Amino acid sequence: MNSCREIIVSPQKGPSYPVVVGVGLWARAVATIPPGRVCLIADRTVFDLYGPSLVGALERTGRAPVKVTFPAGERSKTRRTKVGIEDRMLAEGLGRDTVVLALGGGVTSDLAGFVAATYMRGVPYVNMPTSLLAMVDATVGGKTAVDTAAGKNLVGAFHQPSMVFVDLASLATLPREETWCGLAEMVKHAVVADAGYLSFLKQKAAALWRGEPDICCEAVCRSIEIKAAVVSQDTTEQGVRRVLNFGHTVAHALEQQAGWRLSHGKAVAAGMAVEAEVAFLLGLLAADDRDVLLGVLREVGIWHVPTFPDPDRLVHVMSWDKKAFGGKIRMALPEAVGRMCSGNGEWSVEVAPDLVLTALRRVWGV
Amino acid sequence: MNSCREIIVSPQKGPSYPVVVGVGLWARAVATIPPGRVCLIADRTVFDLYGPSLVGALERTGRAPVKVTFPAGERSKTRRTKVGIEDRMLAEGLGRDTVVLALGGGVTSDLAGFVAATYMRGVPYVNMPTSLLAMVDATVGGKTAVDTAAGKNLVGAFHQPSMVFVDLASLATLPREETWCGLAEMVKHAVVADAGYLSFLKQKAAALWRGEPDICCEAVCRSIEIKAAVVSQDTTEQGVRRVLNFGHTVAHALEQQAGWRLSHGKAVAAGMAVEAEVAFLLGLLAADDRDVLLGVLREVGIWHVPTFPDPDRLVHVMSWDKKAFGGKIRMALPEAVGRMCSGNGEWSVEVAPDLVLTALRRVWGV
Repeated sequence: MNSCREIIVSPQKGPSYPVVVGVGLWARAVATIPPGRVCLIADRTVFDLYGPSLVGALERTGRAPVKVTFPAGERSKTRRTKVGIEDRMLAEGLGRDTVVLALGGGVTSDLAGFVAATYMRGVPYVNMPTSLLAMVDATVGGKTAVDTAAGKNLVGAFHQPSMVFVDLASLATLPREETWCGLAEMVKHAVVADAGYLSFLKQKAAALWRGEPDICCEAVCRSIEIKAAVVSQDTTEQGVRRVLNFGHTVAHALEQQAGWRLSHGKAVAAGMAVEAEVAFLLGLLAADDRDVLLGVLREVGIWHVPTFPDPDRLVHVMSWDKKAFGGKIRMALPEAVGRMCSGNGEWSVEVAPDLVLTALRRVWGV
Repeated sequence: MNSCREIIVSPQKGPSYPVVVGVGLWARAVATIPPGRVCLIADRTVFDLYGPSLVGALERTGRAPVKVTFPAGERSKTRRTKVGIEDRMLAEGLGRDTVVLALGGGVTSDLAGFVAATYMRGVPYVNMPTSLLAMVDATVGGKTAVDTAAGKNLVGAFHQPSMVFVDLASLATLPREETWCGLAEMVKHAVVADAGYLSFLKQKAAALWRGEPDICCEAVCRSIEIKAAVVSQDTTEQGVRRVLNFGHTVAHALEQQAGWRLSHGKAVAAGMAVEAEVAFLLGLLAADDRDVLLGVLREVGIWHVPTFPDPDRLVHVMSWDKKAFGGKIRMALPEAVGRMCSGNGEWSVEVAPDLVLTALRRVWGV
């Protein structure tokens, strides 16, 4: 694969930006990033893998970057890490003409994007995602945030990137757990909007797990297109964007109950199974469509039954989720494979706790 | 004065919002704020003065607010205070349906506005400014920020309020130093856009110092209109908004050299005198107009000659200001009383360090 594909994302608010997808494109990409002093932000693991060559490419264009690294992992996604990055940038004398270059997975784009959103009241940032999840999820939507002790993504901002460069070569070093996370979101995109894409994911599962560039390019682009189409209608999550929460009401409760030691990909895969069952029990989704969806989770290789002690507690946690309104459980639910339930424009449906309990028991036999 | 005046501010980005100016209007205003749970943020001094009656008014509308206070003063305008406020809000279970009510001076609107900008990726905020400076400055423009050890307002966001309520009754408790700050900004607005307003300020100086509601209302509204007209053309400070930096290049250097122990109002008043002289030396401003401007500073009672040791160091600091481009000193300069120099659309002019030194010596004899 020598060619690139480019998708133009047009947020409802803010200017359009390109997402370029290909192999080995970072070295060329650095010649096209916006003017200004470059601040490269990465975790130490990713920096060790790709930092030196990227810095070399930048230096060849006469733009030696300021390099800021932090320890890898979700535990770095805090206000404290953000302060540390900002203080480094200030100590380096970076001004309003700074361009932040976020190199890494979802933690890095969330964190570095949030730094860019508030540094001198906002500087441009360029996103170079290295994980499958970050490629299909963090490239579109402009969501940036950090976690606090009270929960994930509670402090943040909407800040669109100026450009995104997806280099599929970085998938070669991706841990299996991370691939799982990406595939779970991709299945979600297919369920939300495109039954044909769901078939593609099922058929090409092995190639996707191996990180084959042509197949990954096809799938990553389709996921980005779907997410971009949804988000462009609703930048700040007041309506149709809620369809992207499919699987996530249950997933967040699972993650919280597991003390955030459950991977997001496994939680989302498990959550989609339960929420599909909820949709069936509510009479929104036909049994055949539910079975197709559950079958795809198994065939793609992301079926997961979490070990957890107490379904009642899980349901209790759900009614305190950030997306719960007034203590009520709401879910974005499919009404067919490839089509979500509009719920009178709310794009989510109120679900009784007992029904969620029933769905949990039917899917996992708990 | 029993009536209110209302100004509609239309930012280039984001929805329009009303600024209501009057006396004793908070009690009525609380009935009109956006739906959601109310979080009242104020420093302890202001809360002691106005908090209980505002809380009482809110409770009478059935909306008991969460109250979050912090120590008064610029030293509270930090990322640390922001974290403390956020953690209190999270502990109170405040969700995305929160409305932040900022009650206080510029520190409070900058800090509480920034909290609102990033809490759950942004919640609405209502501004209730209590100082003359906050009334004429922080009500328009959407600038929010905190300070860091490296300087003022280095981390922040653009976040427009949903509504602003200016209660002139709060001027009765304003310290003299704070009035000075407001008057300096008001003179700046007049120099930037309205020679007639400059005459008004000169004639009504005594009434303004006394806080007479009718005169203050007239002046506050005129200042808000001028700032709103400038800002609506340029929300993110890429062009014409720079005219509002008149006096501020020198002011920031003075404040920094004084270790931030010089009041902003005195720094801006001093800065306008020097920058008017710079404009004269560059041949941009006629001697008569410069003399009018210097005369107004004296007649309004805000003329100030700072005590500082080293003009050379002051000029050095200026070339490292956040608004300096590539180490060069730039200033927004008037070409007449009421009209700023467009500088080929840059709305600022590059000034040689030696010329600034000359101006400093001529104005203050240092």
